[in-house]
Amino acid sequence: MNYCAECGAQVTLKIPAGDTLPRFVCDICLTVHYQNPRIVAGCVAEWGDRILLCRRAIEPKYGLWTLPAGFMENGETTEEAAVRETAEEAMAEVKLSALYAVFSIPHISQVYMIFRGKLLTPDFKPGAESLEVALFHPDEFPWERLAFRVMHETLRRYAADKPSGTFPVHLGMIQPPEKTDAL
Amino acid sequence: MNYCAECGAQVTLKIPAGDTLPRFVCDICLTVHYQNPRIVAGCVAEWGDRILLCRRAIEPKYGLWTLPAGFMENGETTEEAAVRETAEEAMAEVKLSALYAVFSIPHISQVYMIFRGKLLTPDFKPGAESLEVALFHPDEFPWERLAFRVMHETLRRYAADKPSGTFPVHLGMIQPPEKTDAL
Repeated sequence: MNYCAECGAQVTLKIPAGDTLPRFVCDICLTVHYQNPRIVAGCVAEWGDRILLCRRAIEPKYGLWTLPAGFMENGETTEEAAVRETAEEAMAEVKLSALYAVFSIPHISQVYMIFRGKLLTPDFKPGAESLEVALFHPDEFPWERLAFRVMHETLRRYAADKPSGTFPVHLGMIQPPEKTDAL
Repeated sequence: MNYCAECGAQVTLKIPAGDTLPRFVCDICLTVHYQNPRIVAGCVAEWGDRILLCRRAIEPKYGLWTLPAGFMENGETTEEAAVRETAEEAMAEVKLSALYAVFSIPHISQVYMIFRGKLLTPDFKPGAESLEVALFHPDEFPWERLAFRVMHETLRRYAADKPSGTFPVHLGMIQPPEKTDAL
């Protein structure tokens, strides 16, 4: 950030009075520009004993598989965001049943909120950001071709929960790649 | 938003190619400035059968009671944010035990994530943003003097869960005031 979004003057990184962290503050109008983590909302959409995965048609991770998920928009709920992303990426209608996972990824300031839900019909097809959409049984998850570590972690836990049919809310943190074993 | 934070040129609200929603786009460098909901992380901090509430020393809702909570910062986890806010507002150390509530407030583009936890010691005192900090039994919650409807909703559910000792994860949405009965 270089310029004030309100008045166009330059901003300086400094700790505002009464604050504890450096912020971008406008030199002229004194607006403090806070920057905060973004929510990625997504869905484990079930049809029978399989779930919906999408193969990405966009970078990053073009060609790899992911749960339908994307940035939550202003003016919607987390649940609406998860349903919308499933509609956009997999052209599928889902009815959510529960929150399933909340994963913080502090090194990129993102929080993933993944819900479980049921597909209303088995009708789906690739949306604009997907090359391919398909149903996978946990025994067949494409572990070597998953797009993001947060998806690997979510699907690993889902595959572990599935046999018992009990799905607690999972909380966790995704470390930077250099702090973990390579996936 | 009036100016591009990257180059200082004017921005125009328009739907970028391949997008579906209007965004602020720079007329010169073409940067798309996405705006997304912010997370407020907070804590139901228990000491015996009472929980910690803070009386606000800042606007909005100066003088009214709230759970310790505040905007999540870049670079932290949701859990770290809840613990930090409890330390800042109530000068109290808490160990989190579970996620308790996720409330979307779409009309102000906020998502509250409230955890349950245990105070490590009964030592607490007002931080810079609090006038007073105190422990309340659910039978004594200050219903008429709560700062925000999301806090009213969280505490209402907590008081209902407390007798059974079972605390599921609550999901919900807070409507604009005009769409609900006044609190």
